[in-house]
Amino acid sequence: MNPINKKESSQRLSRLQQTIRELQAEACLISTTVNQFYLLGFIFDGFVFVQPEGDPVLFVKRPSGIKGDNITYIRKPEQLPDLLHQRKIPLPRRLMMENDVLSFSTVSRIQTALEMPKLINVSGEMRRIRSVKSEFEIKQMRECADIHALVYKQIPHIYSKGMTDIEFQIELEREMRLAGSSGIFRTFGENMDIFMGSILTGDNAQSASPFDFALGGQGLSPLLPIGANGTKLIPGTTLMVDMAGNYRPWMSDMTRTFAIGTVPDIAHKAHQVSINICNAISATSQSGTPCANIYSLAEMMVRESGLSGYFMGTAQQAKFVGHGVGLEINEPPVLAPRSKEILEAGMTIALEPKFVLPGIGAVGIENTYIVRNDRLEKITGCEEELVELS
Amino acid sequence: MNPINKKESSQRLSRLQQTIRELQAEACLISTTVNQFYLLGFIFDGFVFVQPEGDPVLFVKRPSGIKGDNITYIRKPEQLPDLLHQRKIPLPRRLMMENDVLSFSTVSRIQTALEMPKLINVSGEMRRIRSVKSEFEIKQMRECADIHALVYKQIPHIYSKGMTDIEFQIELEREMRLAGSSGIFRTFGENMDIFMGSILTGDNAQSASPFDFALGGQGLSPLLPIGANGTKLIPGTTLMVDMAGNYRPWMSDMTRTFAIGTVPDIAHKAHQVSINICNAISATSQSGTPCANIYSLAEMMVRESGLSGYFMGTAQQAKFVGHGVGLEINEPPVLAPRSKEILEAGMTIALEPKFVLPGIGAVGIENTYIVRNDRLEKITGCEEELVELS
Repeated sequence: MNPINKKESSQRLSRLQQTIRELQAEACLISTTVNQFYLLGFIFDGFVFVQPEGDPVLFVKRPSGIKGDNITYIRKPEQLPDLLHQRKIPLPRRLMMENDVLSFSTVSRIQTALEMPKLINVSGEMRRIRSVKSEFEIKQMRECADIHALVYKQIPHIYSKGMTDIEFQIELEREMRLAGSSGIFRTFGENMDIFMGSILTGDNAQSASPFDFALGGQGLSPLLPIGANGTKLIPGTTLMVDMAGNYRPWMSDMTRTFAIGTVPDIAHKAHQVSINICNAISATSQSGTPCANIYSLAEMMVRESGLSGYFMGTAQQAKFVGHGVGLEINEPPVLAPRSKEILEAGMTIALEPKFVLPGIGAVGIENTYIVRNDRLEKITGCEEELVELS
Repeated sequence: MNPINKKESSQRLSRLQQTIRELQAEACLISTTVNQFYLLGFIFDGFVFVQPEGDPVLFVKRPSGIKGDNITYIRKPEQLPDLLHQRKIPLPRRLMMENDVLSFSTVSRIQTALEMPKLINVSGEMRRIRSVKSEFEIKQMRECADIHALVYKQIPHIYSKGMTDIEFQIELEREMRLAGSSGIFRTFGENMDIFMGSILTGDNAQSASPFDFALGGQGLSPLLPIGANGTKLIPGTTLMVDMAGNYRPWMSDMTRTFAIGTVPDIAHKAHQVSINICNAISATSQSGTPCANIYSLAEMMVRESGLSGYFMGTAQQAKFVGHGVGLEINEPPVLAPRSKEILEAGMTIALEPKFVLPGIGAVGIENTYIVRNDRLEKITGCEEELVELS
């Protein structure tokens, strides 16, 4: 059941416990899928109760049948005081909870059940802890990126003349699932719906989306306004493929763009600027580099290219050039103008300088990198040029 | 952009406004995808501000470019007091928000920005309002159920000897997508992950899941412990198919079970009990029937059949026999022992009495019904007997 070894698990736990001590909290309750999986290697319906020292206690609602000294079954949060008392654990007066993800009702109910401890938000702290990956996690991302690349290599074979974007996407989804994609595409934040990734062609790439992804697209339904919308793939336009790299719990993020037949020179030019930006950032960034500087470098190169009006959208332009990647597709750091974050060794980031060209579509690439002491190491190895589909 | 007509939209709005008045609130903020779509027919990043009377005001963060008298662009909730003042709207002292879905951080931030109004939870109220469907919504569910049935009719052609459950599921997912499935499977509640539905065969059906679905399954990853786990489809076992009916925003829910070759008599017997329970409930329920009675009837029939130990699981048994269906797959009412809900005309419910037989797998059916004044009307028309796959 547990794909992480004891050493991984205890290193992660001790980083959380250090944070608990630094913030002078007396306990932390973890109950979201991603953070439970991070700490334990499995998930359940219930709470991981972490104190500043020692092993966590698991208060489990479901599934039935989990056994261990540190397991207590529970039906509802109102039982927590008694169950803690039975374990001789005092009620925490300063409690960390996942306030950015758990609902207001859930957090309020637990706070009331525990006689109103002061709450400290652990969501951002967990995201910060998770942002620096272990070699075990990096190995998973590498394996994931390798499969991601193998799937993308199928694209020229999947494409056939006269397809729509969604017909193309469906065949690619099937290849992804056959290659082990878990399907679920984990994002952080409210209103961030997406299904398996994004395929954009032609002027659908200009459609502004309510979501906080790099680019938009109208989607097929007003209930999911993102990505492919049924546009035919026609010569002279581009096809941008940014599908989930979810072949392992720790993910890779990669975009490649294809030319349908012959595309105008500006598409080649803008695509090359995207490659150049990735290379320039990669050549100048390492542990210690401020994330805001990375954005500035990209912005300067875009300005010099004369393509500012097309950078990261047209009418609506995303104000970032990359982001952390891990168990969720949008982890810290954010590579944005006002970011105060600094790259650290072991962080894993995606760079995605993209352009949207009216009448043509989106161009550019995205790669995932590991931040090292002296460089960025690219793990998404797959041809970066505009490949012509025919 | 708006697939619902003005009449639909204003009827839904007026039901919310009636609730606002009944609870003596001064305003309601709606910002989750499902509820925005329900009220407006489209979604955006931001808040629908609804007062007890009159048109709602939309405070929009993204996408750019929405125009109208009732549209105000906003960057952050802290601007709300000024923006309300500009529209001569006083700060609400009693405010309804979606406390069951929005994060603790989001709700707290808005509450602080609005100078600490008293909060009233609108999540349950919106679910109650949405539980009674209009004829427009019922028409969508009917269309959805018809496509759902057409896709399930492909199952005997998709199956081939020696497949694993996941290989089968991938081909079925492709058929679903080609038939217009939106992919996304909307559920209500924390820790309710699932990808496109559930395929269960053999003893994987006994695996207890942390999630609150009718049945479990180990899944392919400890990060998504539900459904297919790579088990080979072998003669003598069953294949239960409970994939999402998400071909329209308003969904259908349907399960069918297949026999792989010849299965033991007990599988046929338990499957027939499931069909009998659906028929008995359907023959005795209508507007006004207490939901707890529906569960009691199912339980009694299960007891008489001698199959109680296998009903809704083995080691872990779900304590419900059905649930409402709509924009989310789990809407009110819940057909459970202690439910206080009463069926109302226009509600749409799924009945899913299922059995898990050790060494064989899951059997049983699930149908979606419209509650009428004098009956339940089934909309999921597709052969219910155990169909043998070969």
